[in-house]
Amino acid sequence: MAARQLHLNAFLMGVGHHEAAWRHPRAEPAGITDVRHYQRLAEIAERGKLDSVFLADGLALWGNVRHNALGGLEPLTLLAALATVTEHIGLIATVSTTYNEPFHVARKFASLDHISGGRAGWNIVTSASEAEARNFGVERPAHKERYDRAAEFLQVVTELWDSWEDGAILGDRRSGDYADTARIHALDHVGRHFRVRGPLNTSRPPQGHPLLVQAGSSEDGKEFAARYAEAVFTAQQTLQEGQEFYSDLKSRLGRYGRRADELLILPGISPIIGSTEREALQLERELEELIIPAYGVQQLSGILGVDLSDHPLDSPLPEVAQPADGQQSRFKLVTDLARRERLTLRELIGRLAGGRGHRVVTGTPERIADQIQEWFTSGAADGFNIMPPVLPSGLADFVDHVVPELQARGLFRTEYGGRTLRQNYGLARPASRFEQKAPVAS
Amino acid sequence: MAARQLHLNAFLMGVGHHEAAWRHPRAEPAGITDVRHYQRLAEIAERGKLDSVFLADGLALWGNVRHNALGGLEPLTLLAALATVTEHIGLIATVSTTYNEPFHVARKFASLDHISGGRAGWNIVTSASEAEARNFGVERPAHKERYDRAAEFLQVVTELWDSWEDGAILGDRRSGDYADTARIHALDHVGRHFRVRGPLNTSRPPQGHPLLVQAGSSEDGKEFAARYAEAVFTAQQTLQEGQEFYSDLKSRLGRYGRRADELLILPGISPIIGSTEREALQLERELEELIIPAYGVQQLSGILGVDLSDHPLDSPLPEVAQPADGQQSRFKLVTDLARRERLTLRELIGRLAGGRGHRVVTGTPERIADQIQEWFTSGAADGFNIMPPVLPSGLADFVDHVVPELQARGLFRTEYGGRTLRQNYGLARPASRFEQKAPVAS
Ligand SMILES: Cc1cc2nc3c(=O)[nH]c(=O)nc-3n(C[C@H](O)[C@H](O)[C@H](O)COP(=O)(O)O)c2cc1C
Ligand SMILES: Cc1cc2nc3c(=O)[nH]c(=O)nc-3n(C[C@H](O)[C@H](O)[C@H](O)COP(=O)(O)O)c2cc1C
Repeated sequence: MAARQLHLNAFLMGVGHHEAAWRHPRAEPAGITDVRHYQRLAEIAERGKLDSVFLADGLALWGNVRHNALGGLEPLTLLAALATVTEHIGLIATVSTTYNEPFHVARKFASLDHISGGRAGWNIVTSASEAEARNFGVERPAHKERYDRAAEFLQVVTELWDSWEDGAILGDRRSGDYADTARIHALDHVGRHFRVRGPLNTSRPPQGHPLLVQAGSSEDGKEFAARYAEAVFTAQQTLQEGQEFYSDLKSRLGRYGRRADELLILPGISPIIGSTEREALQLERELEELIIPAYGVQQLSGILGVDLSDHPLDSPLPEVAQPADGQQSRFKLVTDLARRERLTLRELIGRLAGGRGHRVVTGTPERIADQIQEWFTSGAADGFNIMPPVLPSGLADFVDHVVPELQARGLFRTEYGGRTLRQNYGLARPASRFEQKAPVAS
Repeated sequence: MAARQLHLNAFLMGVGHHEAAWRHPRAEPAGITDVRHYQRLAEIAERGKLDSVFLADGLALWGNVRHNALGGLEPLTLLAALATVTEHIGLIATVSTTYNEPFHVARKFASLDHISGGRAGWNIVTSASEAEARNFGVERPAHKERYDRAAEFLQVVTELWDSWEDGAILGDRRSGDYADTARIHALDHVGRHFRVRGPLNTSRPPQGHPLLVQAGSSEDGKEFAARYAEAVFTAQQTLQEGQEFYSDLKSRLGRYGRRADELLILPGISPIIGSTEREALQLERELEELIIPAYGVQQLSGILGVDLSDHPLDSPLPEVAQPADGQQSRFKLVTDLARRERLTLRELIGRLAGGRGHRVVTGTPERIADQIQEWFTSGAADGFNIMPPVLPSGLADFVDHVVPELQARGLFRTEYGGRTLRQNYGLARPASRFEQKAPVAS
């Protein structure tokens, strides 16, 4: 095989990642509950030979629906509908470990993996908001507690996927033996958070385990990723921060007996693309003008855990203290950005509106490709999480103009090499842990 | 409109309802995890203008996988994949209220309803088996307790579907008002089983409420159906039992302020179809010969809650006592059947293998149509739950030979009249309960 290859994931966020995308003439806000909108996005991504598409999720109506296009579809259900109109592209759904049961989650991902012929991926989240806890009748568990539950959750789910060994199904019509029951295993898991008997009632998924993706950035989050994740989404603003995060996370894998290349790091990038620099800046400006400042202030207040609604828009961000149990890394990223670039509240809101803390790169396809190449070749990324400001147009622009540039530079595939999500990402298919226990002749 | 019309649901059970279906040459056992198998079934059902397809579900690997094709797909995930290849047919998924959270269930059905353009239905079950409880780390709740939870579950889920009023989305790009927040409502539900804040984070489903289906047969089950269900599946062996169940259940609706025609009763029927009587009997015999008696005894022992593995196959069923918290109605149905027809254990197993207690009718398309017509016109059914012994062939036979017969008799539609599942069943779309609370000029 040739040189090291980039991996590209399309982060499909409603009608676009820019907060005001739904107001832009290129967006169609009704798309957020229209399966054809998402099918079109998946088809565009597959046309560009991208590794995967990804849907984020939360378990509450957060943000302010007065000014933003919220109320979309549950990711697993939606991805099953996308599986049938695509052939190669991976399908990554977000599911929380804090408000779910491992048996259901194992089963749904196993089902999506069967339905898609081995293209399912799970973005594992622990649900940081209080609003989510209130929809499940509980107090939001502390950050550490959420990750503790997540670790046990992963142990149970992967064991359920393993509970049918690969050769368990015989399908022998003549003898009437459908399965070799010696190769289907109970778990009898008893832990701090879960008691699960098993086995799963869906047979082993084509990928063995659907791909495990994660995006935690705290200490607990990074340890969790180093132990379980195979791909990591992250928000990094500068090359240096990107490099630090990359080497920090990769260095943690050894502790869990893993090699550095068993986990791929994909920083987010929101590309605002124009055929000229001027055209790109024009699109950026159009979007900025659609921002509703009061909405942005409210969003930022949420991230920082402090009410900024009375703060003057054209003064610098005030000093604020870090909250205890929220998204610690997002707090740091936003306050660092404001300090580093000496941004006023209005400017900061404008910057966040584009990518909610992710890096926004505005320019020609060549400039975007340069940025991608630089991070990829200088130890900051194994690939990128592409977050188009407006959908579908921003994804089509990326696929039709940036992807060919990356291909011309020999950085990105021109054809799919396999059929599964693991194959797209160049990751191995895990064996069932129960295979080990096969009887040995004595 | 013309005369009263039949409703037909296709119950899609793996590769067939007959226990030994997977061994039959017309079945392809690998179909149970193959989305194309189910897509083909849905397309056949739609070709026959059926009202809906339905997938059962359980939350444990029950039955004996050694001799039966188990380990299939989770229904909601699968139905989302069927939504994209069909246009008219309803999509009914089984989900348990005992081991789920209302917020998740409301959201997934709302999503499926959006994805399918208003064709989602929910078969509400309370999970009777102990095996299921063990996958969720709890003791199986008592029968009454399960229905108590189910009732509160329904209250919360329907309220979540109502939480966005129909006109809540404005999508006004110019003003930046995406939604009218006065028409999106928190629930602040606090009950015995659940505390749920709301609103839902998926907008109101096209049908208002996805169709509510149920199949309980105990006193609690029937009261629950009378209060909430819009379609009921039931297993009835004789016309007289069918009539009794029908008038019993319909008579209960008034208590909840409902009319008798707001709930449709669909007894199960497993049609073994041949172009001649002889051909049908031949197929029945082929299937019988594939039964593995030990497997049948084990299944029956499970239904009756008593171990029959040492009982001689060619003696009558012994007297057994009814268990406390299982499926009470299924126990009665099976013991009545054995007594009424004086069946040996082997014969009883043969009868149950065909339809697990549902009525098996063997014969020509005319004879099957006669049976359907008789029940439909003598107060035992509003339609039927069709349970083909082998899939897809048994469904294709029904659609290609029995449906035209029913159409020729003026009993069944020749074209779809609407686009939603509610329209197929002739049921009204409910308004949001929050519409009532609109401010009135004073
Ligand atoms: C690209 C990206 C996507 C994310 N998607 C989700 C999501 O869909 N749902 C969610 O609850 N959290 C999501 N998160 C938040 C992370 O899961 C994580 O909680 C956050 O980065 C804070 O890190 P920590 O959990 O280690 O404190 C996302 C984060 C990133 C960077
Ligand atoms: C046609 C039919 C389909 C059913 N499907 C399911 C199912 O998918 N999952 C399940 O747990 N129970 C299923 N049941 C069981 C019923 O939900 C119910 O529990 C059973 O009829 C016993 O009634 P009871 O709950 O009132 O005691 C089904 C019953 C019938 C008649």
